[in-house]
Amino acid sequence: MSKRVLGGTLRESDIDKEILLKGWVQKRRDLGGLIFIDLRDKSGVVQVVFNPDVSKSALETADSVRSEFVVQVKGKVVKREENTINPSMETGHIEVIASEIEVINKAKNPPFLIQDESDVSEDLRLKYRYIDLRRTPLQETFKMRHQITQTVRNYLNDNGYLEMETPILTKSTPEGARDYLVPSRVHSGEFYALPQSPQLFKQLIMMSGFEKYYQIARCFRDEDLRADRQPEFTQIDIETSFMSSDEIMEMTENMMQKVMKEVKGIDLELPLQRMPYDEAMRRYGSDKPDTRFGMEFIHVSDVLKDSTFKVFQGAIESGGTVCLLNVEGQANNYSRKDIDKLTDFVKVYGAKGLAWLKVEENDVKGPIAKFLTDEEKQGLISKAEAKDGDLLLFGADDTSVVYDSLGALRLKLGKELGLIDESKFNFLWITDWPLLEYDEELGRYTAAHHPFTMPADGDVDKLATDPANVKANAYDLVLNGYELGGGSLRIYKRELQNQMFEVLGFTNEEAEEQFGFLLDALEYGAPPHGGIALGLDRIVMLLAGRSNLRDTILFPKTASASDPLTDAPDTVSDAQLDELAIQLTKEYE
Amino acid sequence: MSKRVLGGTLRESDIDKEILLKGWVQKRRDLGGLIFIDLRDKSGVVQVVFNPDVSKSALETADSVRSEFVVQVKGKVVKREENTINPSMETGHIEVIASEIEVINKAKNPPFLIQDESDVSEDLRLKYRYIDLRRTPLQETFKMRHQITQTVRNYLNDNGYLEMETPILTKSTPEGARDYLVPSRVHSGEFYALPQSPQLFKQLIMMSGFEKYYQIARCFRDEDLRADRQPEFTQIDIETSFMSSDEIMEMTENMMQKVMKEVKGIDLELPLQRMPYDEAMRRYGSDKPDTRFGMEFIHVSDVLKDSTFKVFQGAIESGGTVCLLNVEGQANNYSRKDIDKLTDFVKVYGAKGLAWLKVEENDVKGPIAKFLTDEEKQGLISKAEAKDGDLLLFGADDTSVVYDSLGALRLKLGKELGLIDESKFNFLWITDWPLLEYDEELGRYTAAHHPFTMPADGDVDKLATDPANVKANAYDLVLNGYELGGGSLRIYKRELQNQMFEVLGFTNEEAEEQFGFLLDALEYGAPPHGGIALGLDRIVMLLAGRSNLRDTILFPKTASASDPLTDAPDTVSDAQLDELAIQLTKEYE
Repeated sequence: MSKRVLGGTLRESDIDKEILLKGWVQKRRDLGGLIFIDLRDKSGVVQVVFNPDVSKSALETADSVRSEFVVQVKGKVVKREENTINPSMETGHIEVIASEIEVINKAKNPPFLIQDESDVSEDLRLKYRYIDLRRTPLQETFKMRHQITQTVRNYLNDNGYLEMETPILTKSTPEGARDYLVPSRVHSGEFYALPQSPQLFKQLIMMSGFEKYYQIARCFRDEDLRADRQPEFTQIDIETSFMSSDEIMEMTENMMQKVMKEVKGIDLELPLQRMPYDEAMRRYGSDKPDTRFGMEFIHVSDVLKDSTFKVFQGAIESGGTVCLLNVEGQANNYSRKDIDKLTDFVKVYGAKGLAWLKVEENDVKGPIAKFLTDEEKQGLISKAEAKDGDLLLFGADDTSVVYDSLGALRLKLGKELGLIDESKFNFLWITDWPLLEYDEELGRYTAAHHPFTMPADGDVDKLATDPANVKANAYDLVLNGYELGGGSLRIYKRELQNQMFEVLGFTNEEAEEQFGFLLDALEYGAPPHGGIALGLDRIVMLLAGRSNLRDTILFPKTASASDPLTDAPDTVSDAQLDELAIQLTKEYE
Repeated sequence: MSKRVLGGTLRESDIDKEILLKGWVQKRRDLGGLIFIDLRDKSGVVQVVFNPDVSKSALETADSVRSEFVVQVKGKVVKREENTINPSMETGHIEVIASEIEVINKAKNPPFLIQDESDVSEDLRLKYRYIDLRRTPLQETFKMRHQITQTVRNYLNDNGYLEMETPILTKSTPEGARDYLVPSRVHSGEFYALPQSPQLFKQLIMMSGFEKYYQIARCFRDEDLRADRQPEFTQIDIETSFMSSDEIMEMTENMMQKVMKEVKGIDLELPLQRMPYDEAMRRYGSDKPDTRFGMEFIHVSDVLKDSTFKVFQGAIESGGTVCLLNVEGQANNYSRKDIDKLTDFVKVYGAKGLAWLKVEENDVKGPIAKFLTDEEKQGLISKAEAKDGDLLLFGADDTSVVYDSLGALRLKLGKELGLIDESKFNFLWITDWPLLEYDEELGRYTAAHHPFTMPADGDVDKLATDPANVKANAYDLVLNGYELGGGSLRIYKRELQNQMFEVLGFTNEEAEEQFGFLLDALEYGAPPHGGIALGLDRIVMLLAGRSNLRDTILFPKTASASDPLTDAPDTVSDAQLDELAIQLTKEYE
């Protein structure tokens, strides 16, 4: 007998071939004395027919099989009769007439149906992940993940980058997110940390003279999880020496162009749009704007600068801002009740309320209209380029609250109103980031990206005098409202790195204790360098059209960072803890 | 000015080009009013000449630079004068006449010279790893590591394997080596474990229907370290469904053939030699024999079965064995003192001594000769095919002691006597492994590989009756005396897996508690599957001709599992421990 063939690949050209199939029983149907089995393997599904005239014993065995049994079948490929052709199946023009079938392994009744979309609880699906993963959309997602990864690798290999592995057992650094810790057995009382990113190691690789590095790198953050966060995630991590930020962005664009072409068949037009951070905030209230639709912020503080309406007045006088969204043509589709719901929505983002107006007969109507002068009303209409039937929604508060709440509202309305062309892939660079953020709680500046980011050309002098207004030589890549990742040029001189730590409130001793090895390395011939890191899981999610990061990770964790399949994390033995010289602070069940 | 070019790539075809170089000052020499700088970048080294007639200011700056300064140079490529051509340099026919030089970053005097081979202490080299890595042999090793990795990937991609990522935060399993643990913050009192291998996950991937998986996977073992062990290491991890062990070995051979061709230019002849475990032990006393030289074990228990010499008699009567190595032509080169040293060597492996004879005039001489009959002497000479001038070294003890000690001695002598052709790459499969080993201490059987290994065809019935003699459907790949890795077919039926756990002394509850998810998965349509895992670090070490695994890992740990560069592991704050609900069992400094 010939070798096994993949059933999903059989076509009319295979007709009359005697073949051997192995796979899973997707479905069994009895019809007119015959048995039909849809046999699934990694290539797809093919229909196998058992006919008593061909083999009585095969028919009997086929009668005993159930869904998800693993079987092997010998048979012959034949053309289907005209009226049984199934054009929606790739193998729909042929079927296999079985002469033999053997049950390789039985299967219990699966806890849920294996179908394209499933409404089973996610916990159950994760507990039986190996069954869930048999669904076609997940199979396709992981094939795409493979394809994206290989395309990225091929591009970087072709451009002289070396793939290199950095350690997973590293040192804990208190800046940034929370580390996962690993107690050391040999060095009692000491701990390794799992890396939040290979940042310092990739900089050291540049100082080692390799010039072009990449890694598909596993990273770890012990953060409270959201739908789009996982304790471990994977990033495309790149670092290079002697390149400008323009060159790094160009390289990244070329890489993404290749990915889009290979994976989606889409020709991405280059160069990608670039937008300074300040502009993105002003136009969309977001540092990762979804530019697939308009409804940009309309700034109306100037129109309302003399307003006697307390909400507007208060916002403007306290140094805040008033913006509006023009929800075009929707005035009649939003009742007071609907708007109340929107009000509840913006309150989550810190807004105190949601002022609104409807445009009618070139005038505005609504509960706040009475507080506005005619001039203000006409000013608003004119500034918003509003027409009859438009709905105007206001944010008036501290600028950050207005941006947050109205930015979120814009996205919500974009989706609700079907303004978003889901077939679009809008890539966008956000540039000219602030280098530092003032942390009220800590009473000091913190690094907006990380403490190794290079200030923008010409801004170095401002580090001492005006840190709030120092820009970073940094860039983020955004796709359809998601941050894919970002990068920067890095500081490569010790004096500047020292100064940066000073601005961040480190004493010399603290800087030395935590980052002494980096500071040292800067003094032994560090080249100018920079790079980028892109979230692979998120890229897969967006390109595969999945709505959840967990669908892009083979064995993901739940929102409480556990794995219902293996039951990790779990208790361990006292002997294990003793060896590590640690103990629990109390008894746990 | 044109873009930067890589200096190491300049050739005679570049003569007269005006170029921009960036890189490190490898060396500076002053000669006859000129300054010569060897400028290094990732492509290699090129000579740059500063001439006061071309630019006085450039000469002055060049005068100030020191080793490892990072500089950029503008200049013109010219042909070297005939008498200054350096044919040992790839750029040795040309040099660059500099018109400008700029210091990009200064460098302190490096703590050690950057030269091909270094006798500096490893601790110092690891502390300044970023300087050590600039050495050409290490640069070449990591380029080769990249090349090996990509060749493996390309081969597997071309053969339908999907690269997939399994979790690093997993569940602790008490079988096998010691786990690294990670305390969970969300689930107080519980721990993740870092995976010793993706074994269970890759089996689950098969149960998920993917059929062909691979991963260049990071693995972790908290073991006491030896020269060829690291706390984290990387393996080429492969699993497939529906394939026989012959097919998996063939696939692996083809992959290694491709690697040898691409990386070493060597045509590996296939199929590779296969040797059953028992034969390897009998002939070489090793399950990973170095077959690049002979000096195989000569079994002489039968010749000596009636010996009155107590050492031989005792070994044979207690069920042990007597073997000898024929060290051909070396009788006169080993004094008693030399042999005493060899005796000390074998004692480390448990031998009580080292009996020896020298062959002279077709007879044997030596301290034990008087205990042997003429018939025995002639029997030994004949069995050993010994000639005058040969040295015979005996092992007589429990079989395992003889194999261990004489096997180690064989390797030592092979190296000492230059019997090993270092240009050879002898691949070898070891097959027909025992499935189980009896652990005297535990008083039960343990898995020789792991508890998921399939017994050999036809040996399943012996599991209950004669476990010691059950063979495994397993195979190890050996290269030049090193185990590159191994694999097996796996158990895919629950009943057999249950039986296996029983033989290993698990209660039902223990099996369920630790491996319940796997046992469950076997019942929901598990396909026959198997795979292999090969140590990438070791492959790189052998192909790059390095003697130490640490040379193949970018940022390795020392023998005490610490990193002198970053100082990992390190103490962490009490706040961090509090969050994890753990405390140290005592105060540490």
